[in-house]
Amino acid sequence: MSETYETAQDAEDAFYDAFEEADLDKMMEVWSNSEEIVCIQPLREQVQGRTAVRQSWREVFATGVNFEIEIYHKQWIETPGAAIHIVHEQLVLNGDRTRLPPPLVATNVYLKDEQGWHLVLHHASPPPPPMPANQQGMGPGIKLPPNF
Amino acid sequence: MSETYETAQDAEDAFYDAFEEADLDKMMEVWSNSEEIVCIQPLREQVQGRTAVRQSWREVFATGVNFEIEIYHKQWIETPGAAIHIVHEQLVLNGDRTRLPPPLVATNVYLKDEQGWHLVLHHASPPPPPMPANQQGMGPGIKLPPNF
Repeated sequence: MSETYETAQDAEDAFYDAFEEADLDKMMEVWSNSEEIVCIQPLREQVQGRTAVRQSWREVFATGVNFEIEIYHKQWIETPGAAIHIVHEQLVLNGDRTRLPPPLVATNVYLKDEQGWHLVLHHASPPPPPMPANQQGMGPGIKLPPNF
Repeated sequence: MSETYETAQDAEDAFYDAFEEADLDKMMEVWSNSEEIVCIQPLREQVQGRTAVRQSWREVFATGVNFEIEIYHKQWIETPGAAIHIVHEQLVLNGDRTRLPPPLVATNVYLKDEQGWHLVLHHASPPPPPMPANQQGMGPGIKLPPNF
């Protein structure tokens, strides 16, 4: 951690830039210097601490997939010292816009420390499965998914 | 929201008690009175605001499933005004301990307001799929799941 981000949004921009650029050092600058940091990739075990978080991104970048990421802000909850951002992440894999994966939903939590705002939690998870056309707009009574 | 919780952990205990008791009013006492609150159930769209969050829990409770929930704390990140808890939720459905679903991973974020600590975000997601026995302990180079 050496970068100073004046706002949580600055840190978030740097996070997704580093993701797109597959730049491990830049990625780790965004994260807090605390060993309490947590990263939860979709359908992966959570990892904690800078060494394990760095390794998890090394594995993502080692796939060699070229990521473009479009971010859709769904909710911001902000206090003077903490910011919780809920986003949808639309990944574009290897530039192929004809086969877009469903967007992921992610929670990013930033805390303000002496060096500005840094990421302490990234929790990304898979989206809902596609809903059959005849159930669009269904109301209450939705069944729980099998693993709920 | 009418209850006062002196700590984030008090709020968390009340949250899971309300979940187990399928008590909608008790559940909503735990949540902040803000319309910014967000709830993300596993493989469901996120919902925002007290009315939608209440409705999402009404749907969970309307399934009639009897939930027992064992919570395993994985990480706490706490500041004077914000608490981020990462937990594993082991659900026991209708008392059947012979067929336990895999534990969910959840992020719960609490903020301190004038009435104490309240929940502003619950993001629960499915666990990793079971790993084949011959891949236990595998190192770097893990493949991304199809939807990543």
